[in-house]
Amino acid sequence: MLMSDSNAQAPPVHLIVRPTTIIDCPRLSKHLGVKLTLASETFQHTGSFKFRAGYNLASSVQHPKLITASSGNFGQALARACSLLGKQCFVVMPANSAQVKVDAVREFGGIVDLVDVRIKSRGQRVKELAAEHPEAYVASAYDDPLVIEGNASLGTELAALSTRFDCILAPLGGGGLTSGIIQGLRAQGNPTPVIGAEPLIANDAARSLRAGQIVVNETEPQTIADGARTLSIGHHNWEILRSGIEDIIEVPEACIKDAVRLLFSLANLKAEPTGALPIGALLAAGARFAGKQVLCVISGGNVDPAVYASILTEA
Amino acid sequence: MLMSDSNAQAPPVHLIVRPTTIIDCPRLSKHLGVKLTLASETFQHTGSFKFRAGYNLASSVQHPKLITASSGNFGQALARACSLLGKQCFVVMPANSAQVKVDAVREFGGIVDLVDVRIKSRGQRVKELAAEHPEAYVASAYDDPLVIEGNASLGTELAALSTRFDCILAPLGGGGLTSGIIQGLRAQGNPTPVIGAEPLIANDAARSLRAGQIVVNETEPQTIADGARTLSIGHHNWEILRSGIEDIIEVPEACIKDAVRLLFSLANLKAEPTGALPIGALLAAGARFAGKQVLCVISGGNVDPAVYASILTEA
Repeated sequence: MLMSDSNAQAPPVHLIVRPTTIIDCPRLSKHLGVKLTLASETFQHTGSFKFRAGYNLASSVQHPKLITASSGNFGQALARACSLLGKQCFVVMPANSAQVKVDAVREFGGIVDLVDVRIKSRGQRVKELAAEHPEAYVASAYDDPLVIEGNASLGTELAALSTRFDCILAPLGGGGLTSGIIQGLRAQGNPTPVIGAEPLIANDAARSLRAGQIVVNETEPQTIADGARTLSIGHHNWEILRSGIEDIIEVPEACIKDAVRLLFSLANLKAEPTGALPIGALLAAGARFAGKQVLCVISGGNVDPAVYASILTEA
Repeated sequence: MLMSDSNAQAPPVHLIVRPTTIIDCPRLSKHLGVKLTLASETFQHTGSFKFRAGYNLASSVQHPKLITASSGNFGQALARACSLLGKQCFVVMPANSAQVKVDAVREFGGIVDLVDVRIKSRGQRVKELAAEHPEAYVASAYDDPLVIEGNASLGTELAALSTRFDCILAPLGGGGLTSGIIQGLRAQGNPTPVIGAEPLIANDAARSLRAGQIVVNETEPQTIADGARTLSIGHHNWEILRSGIEDIIEVPEACIKDAVRLLFSLANLKAEPTGALPIGALLAAGARFAGKQVLCVISGGNVDPAVYASILTEA
């Protein structure tokens, strides 16, 4: 294994991330019937919370090369982090990924490796690459303590807010964000319940919670929330979520799209469908949150313009 | 004239506005070849900088009713401010105003008065309303020292930033924003040059600067930047701008639309066309700003979803 000297000088994740953007949104609050605050990661480096994870991971391991499978945002984040740290980054992506995400990974210096997931899984392709590059670290976008630790920096920020929230809602795909938020909050002694928002057609995490063990999807679910197209939550995430997460709300596709439109119209916020999941959860489970003080984490904003325009106009 | 007791308790404008949102955008910077910072007013109360003006005005005058002509954002801002202060607000709007802006004025408690500007000017209609309501204050969206004073709160915030900018670019319609920013900066002893970004097909301010006196458009120019559809800049604004503004850049419609798309794709920021004018100016006058440290004020984010979707997809 080659050693990289650059890690020694690398600032810790909480000093290099942009603080999350807190947005009050009275019109959206009124529309949804809750006291709503948004914590938007859309202006984070690389446009999503994933930079927290990617940077923490790349700056913590000594490997000069990293390989990851990612539908895009983690790929961008890891590519950017590796670029900052002078490391090389391979990103395996499904062939049907949003074009803007593919372009962005390349712009941030990552090497994109497209795979047709109907023929070969991303995991298989990652194994092939790892065999070619034995000096590389294989990075999971969610199932890694270093990923969780990076995302915990958001939990730390949320714990420092002066408002006491009845609950925090965050998108749930592989479980990296929710487990990180829980870890960050609890480390500060903050007991605010965290609720996951997962696409109904990709509800392996909700089923896992009901079953008491990790349930795996047979194929990648084709939800519009492309950040949640995971086969299952990760083992490290599950260890935190199984007892640490309050609940998981399953969000129908129509509610995800409504949520994107509402964030546009009533909060002036451009969110990607995955980022809009918590607002979709409020739409799907409205009565439960009526009048409550709710914080929704809008996890990212990277969405193809054609996809976004079509969501805006199909209502 | 009726006296309102509420003003006495009203907090001053700098305590009630939301601080502007500062956004670094390395991808957009790289694309434009400048060191770019955005100051976004899209998350301001009512979604644009106009709340600064509307609140300062409504909280400073003693009148219980206010009347204004506005293509929308000032109307929303004044309606919201009056609502906070227990006052009544009439907003005269062109019949072709964006529907979202009409709806928003009503939602904020304003009384919308639509006028076909091909038949009767907004000014004429305001005079009719003022005759019906002699106890009302007729509020200009830009040509009023109280409006300029309100907008100066943004200049004060920009003067407090640690970065030293080579220039500040801001949208220019009636001149309320640019004159306010200049007033606020100069009051803090900050000499940063301020440059206006005006639609080319509504270039009365640029022509005024060249002529050394206010030049008036014969009809409201139908630029997509609907916040800049003013007949001319105001007299109070002119007194500040004639010697205080560094220059005015005339932005073609195509550059305004490109700017909206670039803010979407490379900064995750939803801006209305008027708000994107400064980025359009960088596109229109690229070489002049190459390598410079530039702050662009994104003045607002309120745009009809159909209009926005059409801009995103027509490229």
